[in-house]
This record gives sequence, structure tokens and C-alpha cells, in this order.
Amino acid sequence: MMKTEREKMSDGEPYEQLDPELVERRKLMRRKLLKINQLDDNEQQNSQIKELLADSGDDFWAETGIEFDYGFNIHIGNHFYANYHLTLLDTCPITIGDHCYIGPDVGFYTPVHPLSAKLRDADVELGKPITVGDSVWMGGHVTILPGVTIGSRVVVGAGSVVTKSFGDDVVIAGNPARIIRHLDDNGDVSPG
Amino acid sequence: MMKTEREKMSDGEPYEQLDPELVERRKLMRRKLLKINQLDDNEQQNSQIKELLADSGDDFWAETGIEFDYGFNIHIGNHFYANYHLTLLDTCPITIGDHCYIGPDVGFYTPVHPLSAKLRDADVELGKPITVGDSVWMGGHVTILPGVTIGSRVVVGAGSVVTKSFGDDVVIAGNPARIIRHLDDNGDVSPG
Amino acid sequence: MMKTEREKMSDGEPYEQLDPELVERRKLMRRKLLKINQLDDNEQQNSQIKELLADSGDDFWAETGIEFDYGFNIHIGNHFYANYHLTLLDTCPITIGDHCYIGPDVGFYTPVHPLSAKLRDADVELGKPITVGDSVWMGGHVTILPGVTIGSRVVVGAGSVVTKSFGDDVVIAGNPARIIRHLDDNGDVSPG
Repeated sequence: MMKTEREKMSDGEPYEQLDPELVERRKLMRRKLLKINQLDDNEQQNSQIKELLADSGDDFWAETGIEFDYGFNIHIGNHFYANYHLTLLDTCPITIGDHCYIGPDVGFYTPVHPLSAKLRDADVELGKPITVGDSVWMGGHVTILPGVTIGSRVVVGAGSVVTKSFGDDVVIAGNPARIIRHLDDNGDVSPG
Repeated sequence: MMKTEREKMSDGEPYEQLDPELVERRKLMRRKLLKINQLDDNEQQNSQIKELLADSGDDFWAETGIEFDYGFNIHIGNHFYANYHLTLLDTCPITIGDHCYIGPDVGFYTPVHPLSAKLRDADVELGKPITVGDSVWMGGHVTILPGVTIGSRVVVGAGSVVTKSFGDDVVIAGNPARIIRHLDDNGDVSPG
Repeated sequence: MMKTEREKMSDGEPYEQLDPELVERRKLMRRKLLKINQLDDNEQQNSQIKELLADSGDDFWAETGIEFDYGFNIHIGNHFYANYHLTLLDTCPITIGDHCYIGPDVGFYTPVHPLSAKLRDADVELGKPITVGDSVWMGGHVTILPGVTIGSRVVVGAGSVVTKSFGDDVVIAGNPARIIRHLDDNGDVSPG
């Protein structure tokens, strides 16, 4: 059975960006998000965003300015809060657990272009998924790169650029992000 | 005399985010800012933003895309210029002196969540104030963390993440921001 | 022949920000971009943006949220793609080659303010041009400072703050950005 371009893309394989199904979906999201981001009622906004996502849980809240490409690759748990202008480039799946809080101007980027300019110029595009555990707090201006997994109860300092994966119960910060503190499994700071 | 939730919040104490006065104020700001950010006349935009702030001086100018939560905790001096998409999370007071210039996509973040995931999941939220002196220039993409004080005549390099306080007459840059030059009190580069 | 304020500005000399020609142009761009950024048809949006730029080539595409001050100092080659919310402060010329891809929330900043607070308070403003070669890929949340030249086939990692110039065929990343890999002239990773 041959994969559709959407399936290739979501699976992280090279895909055709100009595939009609993908072009139509991007245009639909654009039209919907332009309207949603001008709604002055938060409840209406939140419920209309939820309809565009693959999954989302109870207590979903996103402030003005959310942007994403497809929605069908975005999976969000319960009790989610995103501040202004969250950007989710969801070429591949973006999966976020329960009780996550995201600061303003944060970007989750799953698309990958080849390092070879020749391949880039030929419009080869692919991607890698991003996965975030439960009870994660990200400060504002955070950048999450393709292929990154972040564990549960992690705190990501504002302005961090997260280029690799991290396990549970750590505070990470910097460009590139590094562990700056360990937390015990109650989320308290560990002594060592 | 018991403090209101607004007073607790502004004083940096844990507060109830779903307090009706605070919820109403956030919704009002949202409705107003959606309209203000679509005005095509700068003078109208600037004067309508000023009405939502605790204090602001003469010669106030903000380009399209300004966002804040309450406005009543924002105090801005004379001759202020902010480029596109300034974000001020004003859980606690944000105080900016005279003659400050702010580049595009800058964030002032006063909210603090606990490092303990248990407390965060229980929606404990508090904050710390941010204070900026006179004649400060911040480049674009700068992030200012809760509790930071920046002195007068400071230059904050584009892309800096300011995690601690700095005194007068320095150039700071990096993530986290560090002093990269000292300026004498005329704002000239000092020889040493 | 005396230079106009626009000519002084574009040439990187101190200029009068309140010059009527410059004020009018900034207001016109503001009015046009507010409307363009609400269009739900990408083709209409792209063609209307192109009309405001000094030069742009075939296959121009910019997602929602593009901002610039003048447009007349922006020169863009063929096959250009910019993701959400590109900000081009075009006091001085911004020149971008063919086949360049730009991630979300990227800022090109040509304006320069003096380090001396006395001169800044007197509203002295000038700028330096930014030049980017062909087949360059910039990740999201990248900041490009005044005076920077970036060569061809360069990859700029997401979240980079580019404070100085770089030649061809390198991968740069960090704050400040540094070379993290060399690419040979086919864009492949070089062995050494």
C-alpha cells in the first residue's frame, strides 16, 4: 500500500510540499487561524482551536496569536496553557502531556531541511517529531528543535534553545540548553 | 485589612488566577488590544494604549502587536519607543524610566511558577517586579526575567536573556546576559 | 547635491527620523501591512507584499505577520520562503539572494543607535546594511544584527544571534553565533 504525502510527512520521510491535500490543509488552517486570532472571546477561541487539533484535553487555553501548519499532527493533554503567539510547525507529530504551561513567543519546530544546499534547492523537506512529558513549564522565547524529547516535570528557562533531548526532573536553560539544576521526583530541588 | 487578589498578585504573593476581578481585567485588555493592534493610525493607537497603563509619559510610541495582561502594573516614563510586538506580562509592576528604546519582539516577564511540579499543577502562581532605569536601549528579541533590575544608560544586546540585575552604564549581551563593555557616565566607552 | 534624509538613512549616515517623507512612508507601510496580514489568500498576500519591496524575484512566499518599516530598502532574490512573523527593519539595505528559506519569528535589524546615552537621547539614529547570499537556510527565532554579511549555502541554527559576518558553506549556531560545522561546496559536510 503506497503512503500518501501526508503519511510520508508525518512519518518523517521526504515528502512533496506541493501535494494538493497538504496545500489545501495549510490554506484551511491559515483561513481559520486568521479568524480565530481575532476573536475577542477566549472560550470561543479555545474551542475553535481544539477542533483543528488531532487531540486536546480538558482545560485548553491559548492566548492570541497561535500559529500552526496542519493541526492534525498536534496532540495536547489536559490542562494546557499557552501564552501569546505560540508557533507549532507540525510537519511531524508534536505531543505534549498534561499540565504543561508555555510562555509567550515559543516555537516548536519539527521541519528539517537538508544541510546540502543542492538538496535544499530541490525542495527536499522532511521532519522529526517533538515530544514533551507532563507538568512541564517553558518560559517565554523558547525554541524547540526537531527530534527533541523533553521528560516530565522539566522547567525550560526563558530564551532556551533546546537542541537535544532531556529526561525527567531537570531545569534546563541556555543556548544550547543545558541542565542547570536537578529536581527530585516531588519537583523539589535535589541536594546534590 | 485583607488584601484583594489583585493586591496579592501585584505584591508578589501567591494569588488566585481565577479571581473574578483579574479574569475580567484580562478579558478587557484582550478585547481592547485586539482592536488597538488593528488601528492604522499610530496616534490613535498610542493614545488608546496609554489609557490602559498605570502611568505613561509624553512621547509614547508603540508599534503594532503590543500585548500585556493587566496594564495597571505598567509604569512608563517620557519619550518611550517600542518596536513591533512588545510583550509585557505584568503580574507584578514593570517600571521603565525616561528615554528608553525597545527593539522588536522583546518580552518582559514578571510571572513566576514554582519549580515544584506538584505546586505548579495546583496552579500556584506568583511574580516579581521588573525595573528599568533611564536612557536604556534594548535590541530586538530580548528576554527580561522576573525580578530583574536594569540600571540607567544600559545597552542590552539583541537576543539577550537577562536573568539577573545590572547597574548603570554597561553594555550587556548573551544568554545569560553578561557585561561585555563598561560605559562612563557620559555613555561613552570607558578605557578600562 | 544635498542628500535627502532617505538617502542619508539608506547610506548609513545619521538622519532625521521625523523627516516627512520617511514618516509618510512608515505610515503607508503600516496601513498596507495591517491589511495584507489579514488577507486569507496567500497569493494575494505575496503579490501585495512584493509591490512594497525594492526588488523581489519569482516564487516569493511569506506567511502571516511580516513587518518592515520602508520596503524600499529590501531586495530579495528568487524562490524565497519566509515563515510566520518575519521582521525586517530596513533603515539600510537588506539584500537576500536566491533560494533562501527563513524560519518563524526571525529578525533582520539594520538600525544602530549610539552607545552614548547622550546621543541616543538626542535621537541620533543611523544603520548598517545586511547581506545574505544564495541558498541560505535560517531556523526560527534567529536575530541578524546591523552590518552582518552571511555567505552562500550557510545554515543558521534556530535561535542564533548573528553578531558578525560569516563566509560561504558553514553551519553557524549559538548566541553569539559561531561556526559549528564546515560544508564543502556541494553543501555536504566536509570531513575535516
